Amino acid sequence: MLKKAIILYSGGLDSSTLLALLHYRGYEIYTLTFDYGQKHSVELEKSTLLSKDYSVKDSKVITIDLRSFGGSSLTSNVPVNKHLSENFTTNEIPLTYVPARNILFLSYALAWGEVNEVYDIFIGVSQIDYSGYPDCRKNFIDSFVKMANLGTKAGVSGRSFNVHTPFIYLSKSEIITLGTFLDLNYGKTHSCYDPSSDGNACGFCESCLLRKKGFKEAEVEDPTKYTENLL
Amino acid sequence: MLKKAIILYSGGLDSSTLLALLHYRGYEIYTLTFDYGQKHSVELEKSTLLSKDYSVKDSKVITIDLRSFGGSSLTSNVPVNKHLSENFTTNEIPLTYVPARNILFLSYALAWGEVNEVYDIFIGVSQIDYSGYPDCRKNFIDSFVKMANLGTKAGVSGRSFNVHTPFIYLSKSEIITLGTFLDLNYGKTHSCYDPSSDGNACGFCESCLLRKKGFKEAEVEDPTKYTENLL
Repeated sequence: MLKKAIILYSGGLDSSTLLALLHYRGYEIYTLTFDYGQKHSVELEKSTLLSKDYSVKDSKVITIDLRSFGGSSLTSNVPVNKHLSENFTTNEIPLTYVPARNILFLSYALAWGEVNEVYDIFIGVSQIDYSGYPDCRKNFIDSFVKMANLGTKAGVSGRSFNVHTPFIYLSKSEIITLGTFLDLNYGKTHSCYDPSSDGNACGFCESCLLRKKGFKEAEVEDPTKYTENLL
Repeated sequence: MLKKAIILYSGGLDSSTLLALLHYRGYEIYTLTFDYGQKHSVELEKSTLLSKDYSVKDSKVITIDLRSFGGSSLTSNVPVNKHLSENFTTNEIPLTYVPARNILFLSYALAWGEVNEVYDIFIGVSQIDYSGYPDCRKNFIDSFVKMANLGTKAGVSGRSFNVHTPFIYLSKSEIITLGTFLDLNYGKTHSCYDPSSDGNACGFCESCLLRKKGFKEAEVEDPTKYTENLL
Protein backbone atom coordinates (compact mmCIF):
# COMPACT_ATOMS: atom_id res chain seq x y z
CA MET A 1 0.00 0.00 0.00
CA LEU A 2 1.22 3.47 -0.86
CA LYS A 3 2.56 5.41 2.10
CA LYS A 4 0.52 8.55 2.68
CA ALA A 5 1.73 11.78 4.24
CA ILE A 6 0.34 15.17 5.12
CA ILE A 7 2.92 17.96 4.75
CA LEU A 8 2.50 21.31 6.46
CA TYR A 9 3.45 23.23 3.39
CA SER A 10 4.04 26.96 3.23
CA GLY A 11 5.85 27.31 -0.08
CA GLY A 12 8.96 28.30 1.87
CA LEU A 13 12.44 26.83 1.59
CA ASP A 14 12.12 24.16 4.30
CA SER A 15 8.66 22.79 3.51
CA SER A 16 9.42 22.81 -0.22
CA THR A 17 12.51 20.70 0.42
CA LEU A 18 10.30 18.40 2.49
CA LEU A 19 7.91 18.10 -0.43
CA ALA A 20 10.78 17.17 -2.76
CA LEU A 21 12.05 14.63 -0.23
CA LEU A 22 8.71 12.86 0.27
CA HIS A 23 8.15 12.78 -3.49
CA TYR A 24 11.57 11.17 -3.84
CA ARG A 25 10.67 8.65 -1.12
CA GLY A 26 7.49 7.69 -3.02
CA TYR A 27 4.79 9.00 -0.70
CA GLU A 28 1.26 9.88 -1.72
CA ILE A 29 1.32 13.51 -0.65
CA TYR A 30 -1.35 15.75 0.86
CA THR A 31 -0.31 19.37 1.37
CA LEU A 32 -1.89 21.60 3.97
CA THR A 33 -1.26 25.32 3.62
CA PHE A 34 -2.48 28.16 5.82
CA ASP A 35 -3.56 31.65 5.04
CA TYR A 36 -3.27 33.26 8.47
CA GLY A 37 -3.20 36.86 7.36
CA GLN A 38 0.58 36.83 6.96
CA LYS A 39 2.03 39.83 5.17
CA HIS A 40 4.08 37.50 3.01
CA SER A 41 1.12 35.85 1.28
CA VAL A 42 3.15 35.63 -1.95
CA GLU A 43 4.25 32.42 -0.19
CA LEU A 44 0.76 31.03 -0.86
CA GLU A 45 1.01 31.66 -4.59
CA LYS A 46 4.40 30.01 -4.84
CA SER A 47 3.07 26.98 -2.99
CA THR A 48 0.74 26.05 -5.87
CA LEU A 49 3.63 26.05 -8.36
CA LEU A 50 5.50 23.24 -6.64
CA SER A 51 2.37 21.24 -5.76
CA LYS A 52 1.91 20.73 -9.48
CA ASP A 53 5.56 19.81 -10.09
CA TYR A 54 5.40 17.08 -7.48
CA SER A 55 1.96 15.63 -8.42
CA VAL A 56 0.50 16.21 -4.99
CA LYS A 57 -2.62 14.04 -4.40
CA ASP A 58 -4.64 16.71 -2.64
CA SER A 59 -3.95 20.26 -1.45
CA LYS A 60 -5.92 22.32 0.99
CA VAL A 61 -5.51 25.96 1.88
CA ILE A 62 -7.12 26.76 5.22
CA THR A 63 -7.88 30.31 6.22
CA ILE A 64 -7.31 30.91 9.92
CA ASP A 65 -8.15 34.06 11.66
CA LEU A 66 -4.99 34.89 13.61
CA ARG A 67 -5.03 38.53 12.57
CA SER A 68 -8.00 39.20 14.86
CA PHE A 69 -5.81 38.12 17.79
CA GLY A 70 -2.78 40.23 16.75
CA GLY A 71 0.49 39.91 18.65
CA SER A 72 2.95 39.19 15.85
CA SER A 73 4.86 41.30 13.36
CA LEU A 74 3.90 38.74 10.70
CA THR A 75 0.19 39.38 11.05
CA SER A 76 -0.13 42.88 12.48
CA ASN A 77 1.34 46.34 12.11
CA VAL A 78 4.39 45.61 14.26
CA PRO A 79 7.38 46.12 11.91
CA VAL A 80 9.42 43.11 10.78
CA ASN A 81 12.98 43.03 12.23
CA LYS A 82 15.63 43.94 9.71
CA HIS A 83 18.52 42.01 11.17
CA LEU A 84 19.33 38.54 12.45
CA SER A 85 17.78 38.68 15.86
CA GLU A 86 19.68 38.46 19.10
CA ASN A 87 17.87 35.26 19.93
CA PHE A 88 20.67 33.30 18.33
CA THR A 89 22.68 34.17 21.38
CA THR A 90 20.16 35.25 24.01
CA ASN A 91 17.27 32.77 23.50
CA GLU A 92 14.87 35.65 23.07
CA ILE A 93 11.79 34.94 21.01
CA PRO A 94 11.49 37.48 18.16
CA LEU A 95 8.53 39.64 17.18
CA THR A 96 7.87 37.41 14.19
CA TYR A 97 6.65 34.70 16.58
CA VAL A 98 2.98 33.98 15.83
CA PRO A 99 1.10 32.79 18.92
CA ALA A 100 0.42 29.05 18.88
CA ARG A 101 1.00 28.89 15.12
CA ASN A 102 2.43 25.39 14.76
CA ILE A 103 0.04 24.07 17.43
CA LEU A 104 -2.86 25.29 15.31
CA PHE A 105 -1.33 24.06 12.05
CA LEU A 106 -0.67 20.59 13.46
CA SER A 107 -4.17 20.47 14.97
CA TYR A 108 -5.71 21.08 11.57
CA ALA A 109 -3.47 18.34 10.18
CA LEU A 110 -4.91 15.95 12.80
CA ALA A 111 -8.44 16.85 11.75
CA TRP A 112 -7.70 16.30 8.07
CA GLY A 113 -5.67 13.19 8.80
CA GLU A 114 -8.48 11.55 10.77
CA VAL A 115 -11.01 12.09 8.03
CA ASN A 116 -8.58 11.15 5.27
CA GLU A 117 -6.93 8.27 7.14
CA VAL A 118 -3.44 9.76 6.90
CA TYR A 119 -1.60 9.38 10.17
CA ASP A 120 1.87 10.54 9.17
CA ILE A 121 2.30 14.30 9.37
CA PHE A 122 5.51 15.99 8.24
CA ILE A 123 6.70 19.43 9.29
CA GLY A 124 9.91 21.08 8.10
CA VAL A 125 10.99 22.62 11.40
CA SER A 126 14.65 22.82 12.39
CA GLN A 127 16.09 23.79 15.72
CA ILE A 128 19.52 24.56 14.30
CA ASP A 129 19.29 27.67 12.05
CA TYR A 130 15.97 28.85 13.40
CA SER A 131 14.46 31.85 15.04
CA GLY A 132 14.06 30.46 18.54
CA TYR A 133 10.34 29.75 18.29
CA PRO A 134 9.35 27.23 20.97
CA ASP A 135 6.98 25.45 18.57
CA CYS A 136 9.93 24.39 16.38
CA ARG A 137 11.60 22.30 19.07
CA LYS A 138 11.74 18.54 19.31
CA ASN A 139 10.42 18.33 22.89
CA PHE A 140 7.32 20.26 21.82
CA ILE A 141 6.73 17.98 18.81
CA ASP A 142 7.07 14.85 20.96
CA SER A 143 4.60 16.25 23.44
CA PHE A 144 2.17 17.15 20.66
CA VAL A 145 2.20 13.55 19.39
CA LYS A 146 1.36 12.20 22.86
CA MET A 147 -1.51 14.67 23.19
CA ALA A 148 -2.78 13.83 19.68
CA ASN A 149 -2.94 10.13 20.42
CA LEU A 150 -4.94 10.74 23.60
CA GLY A 151 -7.31 13.30 22.12
CA THR A 152 -8.37 11.83 18.79
CA LYS A 153 -10.53 8.91 17.76
CA ALA A 154 -7.70 7.61 15.55
CA GLY A 155 -5.22 7.83 18.40
CA VAL A 156 -7.34 6.04 20.99
CA SER A 157 -8.36 3.41 18.41
CA GLY A 158 -4.72 2.40 17.96
CA ARG A 159 -3.99 4.02 14.60
CA SER A 160 -1.25 6.22 15.98
CA PHE A 161 -0.53 9.65 14.65
CA ASN A 162 3.09 10.53 14.15
CA VAL A 163 4.65 13.92 13.48
CA HIS A 164 7.87 13.60 11.51
CA THR A 165 10.56 16.26 11.60
CA PRO A 166 13.32 15.03 9.27
CA PHE A 167 15.05 18.44 9.32
CA ILE A 168 14.98 19.01 13.07
CA TYR A 169 18.76 18.64 13.41
CA LEU A 170 19.75 19.99 9.97
CA SER A 171 21.16 23.45 9.40
CA LYS A 172 19.71 25.66 6.69
CA SER A 173 22.68 24.93 4.42
CA GLU A 174 22.25 21.18 4.90
CA ILE A 175 18.58 21.47 3.96
CA ILE A 176 19.59 23.38 0.81
CA THR A 177 22.25 20.78 -0.04
CA LEU A 178 19.61 18.06 0.24
CA GLY A 179 17.10 19.97 -1.89
CA THR A 180 19.74 20.66 -4.53
CA PHE A 181 20.56 16.94 -4.68
CA LEU A 182 16.82 16.35 -5.23
CA ASP A 183 16.77 18.88 -8.11
CA LEU A 184 14.40 21.20 -6.30
CA ASN A 185 14.05 24.54 -8.07
CA TYR A 186 14.51 26.99 -5.18
CA GLY A 187 13.46 29.79 -7.52
CA LYS A 188 9.92 28.52 -6.91
CA THR A 189 10.19 28.86 -3.13
CA HIS A 190 9.74 31.91 -0.97
CA SER A 191 11.14 32.92 2.42
CA CYS A 192 10.87 36.70 2.82
CA TYR A 193 8.62 38.01 5.63
CA ASP A 194 8.29 41.40 3.99
CA PRO A 195 8.24 41.07 0.20
CA SER A 196 7.70 43.95 -2.24
CA SER A 197 4.41 44.20 -4.10
CA ASP A 198 5.93 42.40 -7.10
CA GLY A 199 6.84 39.44 -4.87
CA ASN A 200 10.59 40.07 -4.64
CA ALA A 201 12.37 39.32 -1.37
CA CYS A 202 13.50 42.28 0.73
CA GLY A 203 16.90 40.73 1.39
CA PHE A 204 17.30 41.87 4.94
CA CYS A 205 14.52 40.48 7.12
CA GLU A 206 15.39 37.64 9.47
CA SER A 207 14.11 35.02 7.06
CA CYS A 208 16.01 36.45 4.04
CA LEU A 209 19.20 36.65 6.07
CA LEU A 210 18.89 33.02 7.18
CA ARG A 211 18.20 32.01 3.59
CA LYS A 212 21.20 33.89 2.16
CA LYS A 213 23.48 32.51 4.86
CA GLY A 214 22.24 29.00 4.03
CA PHE A 215 22.95 29.26 0.30
CA LYS A 216 26.35 30.78 0.97
CA GLU A 217 27.35 28.00 3.38
CA ALA A 218 25.98 25.30 1.06
CA GLU A 219 27.97 26.88 -1.80
CA VAL A 220 24.87 26.79 -3.96
CA GLU A 221 23.79 29.71 -6.14
CA ASP A 222 20.78 31.51 -4.63
CA PRO A 223 18.14 32.02 -7.35
CA THR A 224 16.13 34.42 -5.18
CA LYS A 225 15.38 37.88 -6.55
CA TYR A 226 16.29 40.31 -3.76
CA THR A 227 15.16 43.92 -3.88
CA GLU A 228 18.15 44.89 -1.82
CA ASN A 229 21.34 43.04 -1.25
CA LEU A 230 23.02 43.90 2.02
CA LEU A 231 25.07 40.78 2.77
CA MET B 1 -5.54 41.99 40.26
CA LEU B 2 -8.68 40.62 38.67
CA LYS B 3 -8.48 36.97 37.72
CA LYS B 4 -8.91 36.54 33.98
CA ALA B 5 -10.30 33.50 32.19
CA ILE B 6 -10.97 32.37 28.65
CA ILE B 7 -14.04 30.13 28.38
CA LEU B 8 -14.62 27.87 25.40
CA TYR B 9 -18.22 28.85 25.08
CA SER B 10 -20.74 27.25 22.75
CA GLY B 11 -24.00 28.51 24.20
CA GLY B 12 -24.77 24.93 25.26
CA LEU B 13 -25.79 23.71 28.70
CA ASP B 14 -22.31 22.91 30.03
CA SER B 15 -20.39 25.96 28.86
CA SER B 16 -23.25 28.26 29.89
CA THR B 17 -23.11 26.82 33.40
CA LEU B 18 -19.36 27.41 33.30
CA LEU B 19 -19.98 31.03 32.36
CA ALA B 20 -22.38 31.45 35.29
CA LEU B 21 -19.86 29.82 37.63
CA LEU B 22 -16.91 32.02 36.63
CA HIS B 23 -19.10 35.10 36.85
CA TYR B 24 -20.07 34.02 40.36
CA ARG B 25 -16.39 33.50 41.21
CA GLY B 26 -15.58 37.03 40.07
CA TYR B 27 -13.48 36.40 36.97
CA GLU B 28 -12.95 38.84 34.13
CA ILE B 29 -14.33 36.66 31.36
CA TYR B 30 -13.31 36.25 27.72
CA THR B 31 -15.54 33.93 25.69
CA LEU B 32 -14.33 32.09 22.63
CA THR B 33 -17.00 30.60 20.38
CA PHE B 34 -16.55 28.62 17.18
CA ASP B 35 -18.55 28.50 14.02
CA TYR B 36 -17.32 25.24 12.54
CA GLY B 37 -20.13 24.65 10.10
CA GLN B 38 -22.21 22.82 12.70
CA LYS B 39 -25.81 22.17 11.73
CA HIS B 40 -26.91 23.46 15.11
CA SER B 41 -25.70 27.02 14.61
CA VAL B 42 -28.70 28.31 16.59
CA GLU B 43 -26.23 27.59 19.43
CA LEU B 44 -24.21 30.58 18.20
CA GLU B 45 -27.17 32.94 18.45
CA LYS B 46 -28.03 31.80 21.96
CA SER B 47 -24.42 32.35 23.02
CA THR B 48 -24.69 36.12 22.56
CA LEU B 49 -27.73 36.30 24.85
CA LEU B 50 -25.89 35.03 27.90
CA SER B 51 -22.65 36.92 27.14
CA LYS B 52 -24.62 40.10 27.76
CA ASP B 53 -26.26 38.80 30.95
CA TYR B 54 -22.88 38.00 32.46
CA SER B 55 -21.03 41.19 31.36
CA VAL B 56 -18.37 39.30 29.46
CA LYS B 57 -15.25 41.45 28.90
CA ASP B 58 -14.62 40.32 25.33
CA SER B 59 -16.18 37.74 23.03
CA LYS B 60 -14.79 36.30 19.85
CA VAL B 61 -16.47 34.04 17.34
CA ILE B 62 -13.93 32.22 15.19
CA THR B 63 -14.92 30.60 11.94
CA ILE B 64 -13.07 27.36 11.35
CA ASP B 65 -13.31 25.38 8.22
CA LEU B 66 -14.00 21.85 9.45
CA ARG B 67 -16.73 21.26 6.90
CA SER B 68 -14.17 21.04 4.11
CA PHE B 69 -12.67 18.05 5.91
CA GLY B 70 -16.01 16.29 6.55
CA GLY B 71 -16.15 13.16 8.68
CA SER B 72 -18.79 14.06 11.27
CA SER B 73 -22.56 14.01 11.35
CA LEU B 74 -22.41 17.46 12.98
CA THR B 75 -20.75 19.10 9.99
CA SER B 76 -21.65 16.92 6.99
CA ASN B 77 -24.57 15.06 5.48
CA VAL B 78 -24.22 12.03 7.74
CA PRO B 79 -27.51 11.86 9.70
CA VAL B 80 -27.52 12.64 13.43
CA ASN B 81 -28.23 9.58 15.64
CA LYS B 82 -31.71 9.57 17.09
CA HIS B 83 -31.02 7.59 20.22
CA LEU B 84 -28.58 7.49 23.10
CA SER B 85 -25.64 5.82 21.45
CA GLU B 86 -24.27 2.46 22.41
CA ASN B 87 -21.03 4.09 23.43
CA PHE B 88 -22.36 4.46 26.96
CA THR B 89 -21.79 0.77 27.27
CA THR B 90 -19.42 -0.16 24.43
CA ASN B 91 -16.94 2.74 24.41
CA GLU B 92 -17.69 3.33 20.74
CA ILE B 93 -17.17 6.86 19.49
CA PRO B 94 -20.37 8.16 17.87
CA LEU B 95 -20.83 9.76 14.45
CA THR B 96 -21.23 13.14 16.09
CA TYR B 97 -17.51 13.11 16.91
CA VAL B 98 -15.84 16.03 15.10
CA PRO B 99 -12.20 15.27 14.26
CA ALA B 100 -9.76 17.08 16.56
CA ARG B 101 -12.44 19.57 17.62
CA ASN B 102 -11.37 20.32 21.18
CA ILE B 103 -7.70 20.22 20.16
CA LEU B 104 -8.41 22.97 17.64
CA PHE B 105 -10.61 24.94 20.04
CA LEU B 106 -8.02 24.83 22.81
CA SER B 107 -5.26 25.77 20.36
CA TYR B 108 -7.14 28.90 19.37
CA ALA B 109 -7.56 29.67 23.07
CA LEU B 110 -3.77 29.47 23.49
CA ALA B 111 -3.27 31.90 20.62
CA TRP B 112 -5.77 34.38 22.06
CA GLY B 113 -4.49 33.83 25.58
CA GLU B 114 -0.89 34.62 24.63
CA VAL B 115 -1.81 37.87 22.94
CA ASN B 116 -4.29 38.84 25.63
CA GLU B 117 -2.21 37.60 28.57
CA VAL B 118 -4.88 35.25 29.84
CA TYR B 119 -3.38 31.95 30.89
CA ASP B 120 -6.37 30.27 32.48
CA ILE B 121 -8.59 28.48 29.98
CA PHE B 122 -11.85 26.86 31.06
CA ILE B 123 -13.68 24.12 29.18
CA GLY B 124 -16.95 22.52 30.28
CA VAL B 125 -16.17 18.93 29.40
CA SER B 126 -17.37 16.05 31.54
CA GLN B 127 -16.40 12.43 31.30
CA ILE B 128 -19.44 11.23 33.23
CA ASP B 129 -22.59 11.84 31.13
CA TYR B 130 -20.77 12.31 27.85
CA SER B 131 -20.67 10.85 24.41
CA GLY B 132 -17.35 9.04 24.66
CA TYR B 133 -15.32 11.60 22.74
CA PRO B 134 -11.62 11.16 23.53
CA ASP B 135 -11.06 14.92 23.61
CA CYS B 136 -13.33 15.24 26.66
CA ARG B 137 -11.16 13.09 28.93
CA LYS B 138 -8.92 14.26 31.74
CA ASN B 139 -5.80 12.47 30.48
CA PHE B 140 -6.10 14.29 27.16
CA ILE B 141 -6.52 17.67 28.88
CA ASP B 142 -3.47 17.08 31.08
CA SER B 143 -1.42 16.14 28.05
CA PHE B 144 -2.63 19.23 26.18
CA VAL B 145 -1.44 21.48 29.02
CA LYS B 146 2.04 19.94 28.94
CA MET B 147 2.24 20.41 25.18
CA ALA B 148 1.00 24.00 25.45
CA ASN B 149 3.68 24.94 27.96
CA LEU B 150 6.41 23.53 25.72
CA GLY B 151 5.11 25.00 22.46
CA THR B 152 4.23 28.59 23.33
CA LYS B 153 6.24 31.67 24.18
CA ALA B 154 4.15 32.14 27.34
CA GLY B 155 4.74 28.56 28.41
CA VAL B 156 8.51 28.57 27.93
CA SER B 157 8.76 32.00 29.56
CA GLY B 158 7.30 30.65 32.78
CA ARG B 159 3.79 32.08 32.59
CA SER B 160 2.14 28.68 32.59
CA PHE B 161 -1.05 27.97 30.75
CA ASN B 162 -3.64 25.94 32.58
CA VAL B 163 -6.76 24.27 31.23
CA HIS B 164 -9.44 23.99 33.91
CA THR B 165 -12.20 21.41 33.72
CA PRO B 166 -14.36 21.99 36.81
CA PHE B 167 -17.12 19.70 35.46
CA ILE B 168 -14.91 16.79 34.44
CA TYR B 169 -16.28 14.52 37.18
CA LEU B 170 -19.82 15.97 37.36
CA SER B 171 -22.86 14.29 35.85
CA LYS B 172 -25.23 16.28 33.66
CA SER B 173 -27.75 16.51 36.50
CA GLU B 174 -25.08 17.80 38.89
CA ILE B 175 -24.11 20.48 36.37
CA ILE B 176 -27.78 21.48 36.10
CA THR B 177 -28.14 21.56 39.89
CA LEU B 178 -25.14 23.88 40.08
CA GLY B 179 -26.44 26.16 37.32
CA THR B 180 -29.86 26.33 38.97
CA PHE B 181 -28.24 27.38 42.25
CA LEU B 182 -26.45 30.11 40.26
CA ASP B 183 -29.80 31.31 38.81
CA LEU B 184 -28.78 30.47 35.27
CA ASN B 185 -31.68 30.70 32.85
CA TYR B 186 -31.39 27.42 30.95
CA GLY B 187 -34.03 28.68 28.53
CA LYS B 188 -31.20 30.73 27.03
CA THR B 189 -29.00 27.68 26.41
CA HIS B 190 -29.10 25.23 23.55
CA SER B 191 -28.09 21.58 23.26
CA CYS B 192 -29.86 20.04 20.24
CA TYR B 193 -27.65 18.74 17.40
CA ASP B 194 -30.51 18.88 14.92
CA PRO B 195 -32.83 21.80 15.68
CA SER B 196 -35.82 22.82 13.58
CA SER B 197 -35.62 25.97 11.47
CA ASP B 198 -37.33 27.97 14.24
CA GLY B 199 -34.58 26.91 16.68
CA ASN B 200 -36.60 24.39 18.70
CA ALA B 201 -34.85 21.26 19.94
CA CYS B 202 -35.69 17.96 18.22
CA GLY B 203 -36.00 16.14 21.54
CA PHE B 204 -34.49 12.87 20.45
CA CYS B 205 -30.91 13.39 19.29
CA GLU B 206 -28.14 12.23 21.61
CA SER B 207 -27.64 15.70 23.03
CA CYS B 208 -31.36 16.31 23.67
CA LEU B 209 -31.67 12.92 25.36
CA LEU B 210 -28.71 13.63 27.65
CA ARG B 211 -30.19 17.04 28.46
CA LYS B 212 -33.66 15.67 29.28
CA LYS B 213 -32.17 12.91 31.40
CA GLY B 214 -30.12 15.52 33.28
CA PHE B 215 -33.09 17.76 34.11
CA LYS B 216 -35.15 14.76 35.17
CA GLU B 217 -32.44 13.46 37.50
CA ALA B 218 -31.80 16.95 38.89
CA GLU B 219 -35.56 17.33 39.51
CA VAL B 220 -35.43 20.70 37.80
CA GLU B 221 -38.03 21.81 35.27
CA ASP B 222 -36.61 21.76 31.74
CA PRO B 223 -37.46 25.06 29.99
CA THR B 224 -36.40 23.73 26.57
CA LYS B 225 -38.92 23.87 23.74
CA TYR B 226 -38.91 20.42 22.17
CA THR B 227 -40.50 19.83 18.79
CA GLU B 228 -41.16 16.24 19.78
CA ASN B 229 -41.23 14.69 23.18
CA LEU B 230 -40.43 11.01 23.14
CA LEU B 231 -39.13 10.41 26.64
